[in-house]
Amino acid sequence: MEKLIKHKLKKAGLPPGTLVHIGEKKCKEVQITLFDYDEINFEEKEIKNVDECYPFKNKPTVTWINVEGLHQIDILEKLGNFFGIHPLAQEDILNTEQRPKSEDFIDNIYIVFKMLSYDNSSHEIIPEQVSLILGSNFLISFQEGIEGDIFDSIRDRIRGNKGRIRKSGADYLAYRLLDAVVDNYFVILEKLGNKIELLEEELINEVKSTTLKEIHNLKKEMIFLRKSVWPLREVVNNLQKEDSPLIKDSTKIFLRDVYDHTIQVMDTIESYRDMIAGMLEIYLTNITNRTNTVMKVLTIFATIFMPPTFIVGIYGMNFKYMPELDWKWGYPIIMLLMLLIAFSMLWYFKKKKWI
Amino acid sequence: MEKLIKHKLKKAGLPPGTLVHIGEKKCKEVQITLFDYDEINFEEKEIKNVDECYPFKNKPTVTWINVEGLHQIDILEKLGNFFGIHPLAQEDILNTEQRPKSEDFIDNIYIVFKMLSYDNSSHEIIPEQVSLILGSNFLISFQEGIEGDIFDSIRDRIRGNKGRIRKSGADYLAYRLLDAVVDNYFVILEKLGNKIELLEEELINEVKSTTLKEIHNLKKEMIFLRKSVWPLREVVNNLQKEDSPLIKDSTKIFLRDVYDHTIQVMDTIESYRDMIAGMLEIYLTNITNRTNTVMKVLTIFATIFMPPTFIVGIYGMNFKYMPELDWKWGYPIIMLLMLLIAFSMLWYFKKKKWI
Amino acid sequence: MEKLIKHKLKKAGLPPGTLVHIGEKKCKEVQITLFDYDEINFEEKEIKNVDECYPFKNKPTVTWINVEGLHQIDILEKLGNFFGIHPLAQEDILNTEQRPKSEDFIDNIYIVFKMLSYDNSSHEIIPEQVSLILGSNFLISFQEGIEGDIFDSIRDRIRGNKGRIRKSGADYLAYRLLDAVVDNYFVILEKLGNKIELLEEELINEVKSTTLKEIHNLKKEMIFLRKSVWPLREVVNNLQKEDSPLIKDSTKIFLRDVYDHTIQVMDTIESYRDMIAGMLEIYLTNITNRTNTVMKVLTIFATIFMPPTFIVGIYGMNFKYMPELDWKWGYPIIMLLMLLIAFSMLWYFKKKKWI
Amino acid sequence: MEKLIKHKLKKAGLPPGTLVHIGEKKCKEVQITLFDYDEINFEEKEIKNVDECYPFKNKPTVTWINVEGLHQIDILEKLGNFFGIHPLAQEDILNTEQRPKSEDFIDNIYIVFKMLSYDNSSHEIIPEQVSLILGSNFLISFQEGIEGDIFDSIRDRIRGNKGRIRKSGADYLAYRLLDAVVDNYFVILEKLGNKIELLEEELINEVKSTTLKEIHNLKKEMIFLRKSVWPLREVVNNLQKEDSPLIKDSTKIFLRDVYDHTIQVMDTIESYRDMIAGMLEIYLTNITNRTNTVMKVLTIFATIFMPPTFIVGIYGMNFKYMPELDWKWGYPIIMLLMLLIAFSMLWYFKKKKWI
Amino acid sequence: MEKLIKHKLKKAGLPPGTLVHIGEKKCKEVQITLFDYDEINFEEKEIKNVDECYPFKNKPTVTWINVEGLHQIDILEKLGNFFGIHPLAQEDILNTEQRPKSEDFIDNIYIVFKMLSYDNSSHEIIPEQVSLILGSNFLISFQEGIEGDIFDSIRDRIRGNKGRIRKSGADYLAYRLLDAVVDNYFVILEKLGNKIELLEEELINEVKSTTLKEIHNLKKEMIFLRKSVWPLREVVNNLQKEDSPLIKDSTKIFLRDVYDHTIQVMDTIESYRDMIAGMLEIYLTNITNRTNTVMKVLTIFATIFMPPTFIVGIYGMNFKYMPELDWKWGYPIIMLLMLLIAFSMLWYFKKKKWI
Repeated sequence: MEKLIKHKLKKAGLPPGTLVHIGEKKCKEVQITLFDYDEINFEEKEIKNVDECYPFKNKPTVTWINVEGLHQIDILEKLGNFFGIHPLAQEDILNTEQRPKSEDFIDNIYIVFKMLSYDNSSHEIIPEQVSLILGSNFLISFQEGIEGDIFDSIRDRIRGNKGRIRKSGADYLAYRLLDAVVDNYFVILEKLGNKIELLEEELINEVKSTTLKEIHNLKKEMIFLRKSVWPLREVVNNLQKEDSPLIKDSTKIFLRDVYDHTIQVMDTIESYRDMIAGMLEIYLTNITNRTNTVMKVLTIFATIFMPPTFIVGIYGMNFKYMPELDWKWGYPIIMLLMLLIAFSMLWYFKKKKWI
Repeated sequence: MEKLIKHKLKKAGLPPGTLVHIGEKKCKEVQITLFDYDEINFEEKEIKNVDECYPFKNKPTVTWINVEGLHQIDILEKLGNFFGIHPLAQEDILNTEQRPKSEDFIDNIYIVFKMLSYDNSSHEIIPEQVSLILGSNFLISFQEGIEGDIFDSIRDRIRGNKGRIRKSGADYLAYRLLDAVVDNYFVILEKLGNKIELLEEELINEVKSTTLKEIHNLKKEMIFLRKSVWPLREVVNNLQKEDSPLIKDSTKIFLRDVYDHTIQVMDTIESYRDMIAGMLEIYLTNITNRTNTVMKVLTIFATIFMPPTFIVGIYGMNFKYMPELDWKWGYPIIMLLMLLIAFSMLWYFKKKKWI
Repeated sequence: MEKLIKHKLKKAGLPPGTLVHIGEKKCKEVQITLFDYDEINFEEKEIKNVDECYPFKNKPTVTWINVEGLHQIDILEKLGNFFGIHPLAQEDILNTEQRPKSEDFIDNIYIVFKMLSYDNSSHEIIPEQVSLILGSNFLISFQEGIEGDIFDSIRDRIRGNKGRIRKSGADYLAYRLLDAVVDNYFVILEKLGNKIELLEEELINEVKSTTLKEIHNLKKEMIFLRKSVWPLREVVNNLQKEDSPLIKDSTKIFLRDVYDHTIQVMDTIESYRDMIAGMLEIYLTNITNRTNTVMKVLTIFATIFMPPTFIVGIYGMNFKYMPELDWKWGYPIIMLLMLLIAFSMLWYFKKKKWI
Repeated sequence: MEKLIKHKLKKAGLPPGTLVHIGEKKCKEVQITLFDYDEINFEEKEIKNVDECYPFKNKPTVTWINVEGLHQIDILEKLGNFFGIHPLAQEDILNTEQRPKSEDFIDNIYIVFKMLSYDNSSHEIIPEQVSLILGSNFLISFQEGIEGDIFDSIRDRIRGNKGRIRKSGADYLAYRLLDAVVDNYFVILEKLGNKIELLEEELINEVKSTTLKEIHNLKKEMIFLRKSVWPLREVVNNLQKEDSPLIKDSTKIFLRDVYDHTIQVMDTIESYRDMIAGMLEIYLTNITNRTNTVMKVLTIFATIFMPPTFIVGIYGMNFKYMPELDWKWGYPIIMLLMLLIAFSMLWYFKKKKWI
Repeated sequence: MEKLIKHKLKKAGLPPGTLVHIGEKKCKEVQITLFDYDEINFEEKEIKNVDECYPFKNKPTVTWINVEGLHQIDILEKLGNFFGIHPLAQEDILNTEQRPKSEDFIDNIYIVFKMLSYDNSSHEIIPEQVSLILGSNFLISFQEGIEGDIFDSIRDRIRGNKGRIRKSGADYLAYRLLDAVVDNYFVILEKLGNKIELLEEELINEVKSTTLKEIHNLKKEMIFLRKSVWPLREVVNNLQKEDSPLIKDSTKIFLRDVYDHTIQVMDTIESYRDMIAGMLEIYLTNITNRTNTVMKVLTIFATIFMPPTFIVGIYGMNFKYMPELDWKWGYPIIMLLMLLIAFSMLWYFKKKKWI
């Protein structure tokens, strides 16, 4: 969580618009891929030099430039200056601690949000920031460059000219990227849902010493998730109500669908939070319950053995004149008396429902 | 709860508008029934082939097509294409994890919400998704096809031409379906109310080991119920304020009535949540209370028996020179002394209101 | 609480507008009284047959028809049809589980709210539903018919022609009824305030075994009260802002006053809720505190008596060679040693502020 | 707290506009003082008879009539009728349980709020209701008449013609009174802040038996304070946005300043509430902590002394054939063994960080 | 926290517009520095006498007057009167307990907010109030004058004519100051984040006696931080939407960026609050857990040693007729019996997972 703050420091004191890459370097080399398509034509290109993108700016076809890796600032600068990305947007693209938001710069719309992936080995949610620059006939997307990509299915559909995508503009492409990211949230939520289910079973069957820590971690993941998704809701809502010619009305109906999905994600997060809060209550109540049981065992033992122990003590005294000691049946009578006491105690606890 | 998420996975990665049935197959075969009526005429038909519905589209009479079972995608596709159901709506109909919502597609209005039924054997709430497509003179309803139907009374009224229904349009029919579903929520709430009442009595009289788990489950059911009803409130409100010619003003006054009922449902859910939270508090306080009682019993026993046990220990020592041992009245005096100590302890605890 | 739900069942499945009396029959016979007045004339009548009311509909004087008891549905139907009460309003009048609301039916305004009375024997709050139909020159009020009426003082003022009431219209009369009901909430709140005060004293002085249950009940009463008053606030606000000729501007200033009072009632309820929550905290803390005290007593006793008991055990051993046993001062030295140990323990606990 | 409700009872049942003094009589005699001033002239008068005020109504100078004590209803009635105070306002002036509010009666504005003072002997907050009637060139203020007045400094400034006050109208005077009252809230808050600081120190250093009760009382005072200040915020906001010629624009800028102060008061109250909630948590945690310590002491003692006590018991048995008893080194060996056991227990607890 | 209130007292009773310095004197002497610049010219001056500033008022260049130290009231008065600072603004500048706000006085805009610094030795957050007066071509800033300044980097950029600052107006300069302050909040948050991380580790590894107090302090710091940042959010939002010619549209896009940052700060504070609340829960659960462990140890010991101790007591009795005492194998049999009991107890606890 602290990471969200730490990297901001690199910049504190610098003027706005200064390009500094904030965040960890998540891949070796910056990779740029270019898709250019309309309903009929399609071109896919691995870009080595930023200049190769320039001719596509004024072509009427849709151009999607995908940049993976943010640590080479000059690439962003060149692209930014050529495609007219506002200095503040350039700065925000590099700052991977950005809060999801959208900003209308008239010539283009800047959208930034978090893509989440779940690391199956460390059981952690790994965020990756995605920035989109939506122009009239181009879309530039910036990713931090973590391996494994949820955009591959979209690429396949473009290549194969399946569905509506090749017939639609850059705004529809932007919607598809957003939709893929939001759909992926459900995958993350399912993983967390499974964790909650497992922990709930643990709570009821056998509590491990790690249970409390796991509940606490789950709670923190929820805080983190909420922080990522909550502003995204606003972003999608703004886009859908945006009064910009860059987003067509036919696309807005799809954005409304994404909006409904983000609300569903939020609803599920809230439900999970409620359930985790409930688990903590159960956990605390369980401990209190067990302390109660332990106390009962102790009390039952102590109250059953204390009186007889006292009685045997009496007849261990060395007084000269203790008539009982000389009785023939003294020993068995005392033994019976003690048994009687023990059983009446047991009966008492039975009645009180302690055993 | 996790189920709400799991099925979404089947679709993550697919483009929007792809028809995939998400959810369990809840009935064997898809059943389609058609009602066609106006104030004078009435026709009821079991549909085997979707084509049989086509002629009714342009008839001025009201047509209600009810589809039970969602797993035969081709049926939805044919109906959808003929009656002009938007691809996104078609997709949502099949996704049974949909959040309640309404969407105005100009030609028709798409409404989706949850019908709840209470399984008396498993004591669980079973959700069933209902989708409505409201056109100018037709209403198509899609259900998952669980047995037992709360719409039967409405069918009877159409057949018998009772009340206002045959004199009104498709919008009034949609209202009647919504109203039946919301009225049914009160039945569910009553079941839960009974559960709460039973648990409250249990809490006061005798706590079972399952009490905590039951409170926890009740709490989760409330979370689930709230998630279903809360958006419905919005849906009804939107319909009532809808500026569409598909919903007549005379129907809106009835929708306002449904709206009031959903608010009443929400109010009751909130009250129940408050009461369940209170029960958990009572439960925890009860345990703490009982631990206190157990502790008191232990302490009373220990403090009454420890001093005498010590005293008898003294006179069990083997010192050569212990004058008391030779006294004639030593034994009875010591016994009286110990009794005195025990009674003063009892008197002390009496004063402290421990016993 | 469950009652709010149960009666709704009688109706689930019936079409809207079907008149069914939902709720308990709270009085033997339906009583109808009629007041007809203007500044000069006054007439009071016990109505046996509904027809007797009809001539008053078109008289310019103000007519107040008060119906006590709702179980004779035909009375409502006749009145309703003659005075133009909307079917939905008629239905709501009979459903005594209605949420407070107001509805403008153009010809008349329907207002429904809860009158509360406090049963001094069972210490329970008893709700009674009051429905008003406000026409241009008449007011019809429906009550469930519980004995004892807070409207009597208003009747006296009409009879005695005191104050403004005979000079004003039906809307002012409606305001007076509302005002009487809201004023009566303060009486209920005072009773609850006294209960809270008593419980707080109990909490500090001596906790009874019923305290927890009483706090819990108080909490539930607050939940119930809040549910009744919260929507009333909205009702009064709507009336005051109503754009209907049925409510004169001169009356609205009075309605604003009632509105202020409902807010004051809400504020007080919220304060009470906060105070009850605080009492539960105090209660729990008190128990924990007392467990702590009990533990201290036990620990002090145990630590004082354990070491001496061990020591006397030592000299109770039967070893052949134990030199101390033969010493002349062995016995008193050991006794002093044990006293020393006991006093040093006491000093230690004194220092630790345990005693 | 209950007092807020009790006095309301005196009136329940009476018609609106009936003048009844609700509240305690807080001073012996009603005192009326009159200030009349403009930039040049100034007159101060002790009024014995209400009639003496009448000539000032139509003078162009600013007239401030201050009435202390509310129990002589005829004075209010005369003043009210002459200066055009609305019957509802007259009623509210007498009801000292009024919620702070402002009401625009066109000819004048009625403002009511709470002045708070802190009784240093009983450590309680004492509320006093202040009502203002702001006319075009006069201001009538009603107080309950508790001794000690925070308005004296304003009187001095009028007498001495200091600052802006003699140059401004009645609305500025009203603002000054409001400002004095809000400024005084900071004095109350400081007292409560000191209390919180003291209690926090107590919590950390040595908990007294009264600590819990004091925290509870502080919490109740916060509930009370909040109830007084929260509506005042609204009052000042309304005045500042009021579209009445009675409040000049030049005064509104000052009212905005008062508004900022009331928000600051609210913020501080909220912070205090948070801090008190935190204190209760600390208190509860502290007790639990101490119980833990007590338990540890008991357990350490018990586990150290139980095994040796058992061992000495063994050699206290009277079996004929117990070889150890005849060994020469039996006694010291057993003593050493028991020491060993005790020390290994101590070492174990050391390792577990219990001691 | 109380300090926020205390200083207000100095003023209670004084009329508005009276200049009184509220707050501690944080520096020795008041220092005034003047920057005057446009794209070409630049002048920096240490001001000894306020008059030296006067000529800059009407120069078309941007003039930044920075006043450090507020205790010389005459300086503020002279500056205020010459540059047209409203009396209320003058008063607010001196009151260092001001809530962040902005006020449009048409000729200039008054902005007040908190600059925070973190004292590394006392580990406390130290607030410093900054007031800005933004005119058409000048900006006057007032600071309390704590050493170490986050504005130095801005001064360097003006001197070095780097970036956009020399090309822009006074409104851009104001933005830069605000931006520097908000950026600095991230530094504070990082320090707090580190504290939280450390405490979390402490909670899991080894709880110190100070942990609870530190969590409590952290919570209080969060309350304080929130109180400073929350209103700032509103301030930036107001400036950005301000309809004043003093703030150019080109600057507003930058203000929107600052606004996003303040929201991010708020989000992080809320997350931290959630995490601290979670830590308190963990802490309480941990103690309860440990009490449970302590109880188990005690119970295990007690239940293992109580029965054997009782048995050895039996054979320590002095009855004449106890046949077992004379058996040859009596002693070893009894010893074995006791071992058996002890092991069966251990096995029982093993099964119950207590050990």
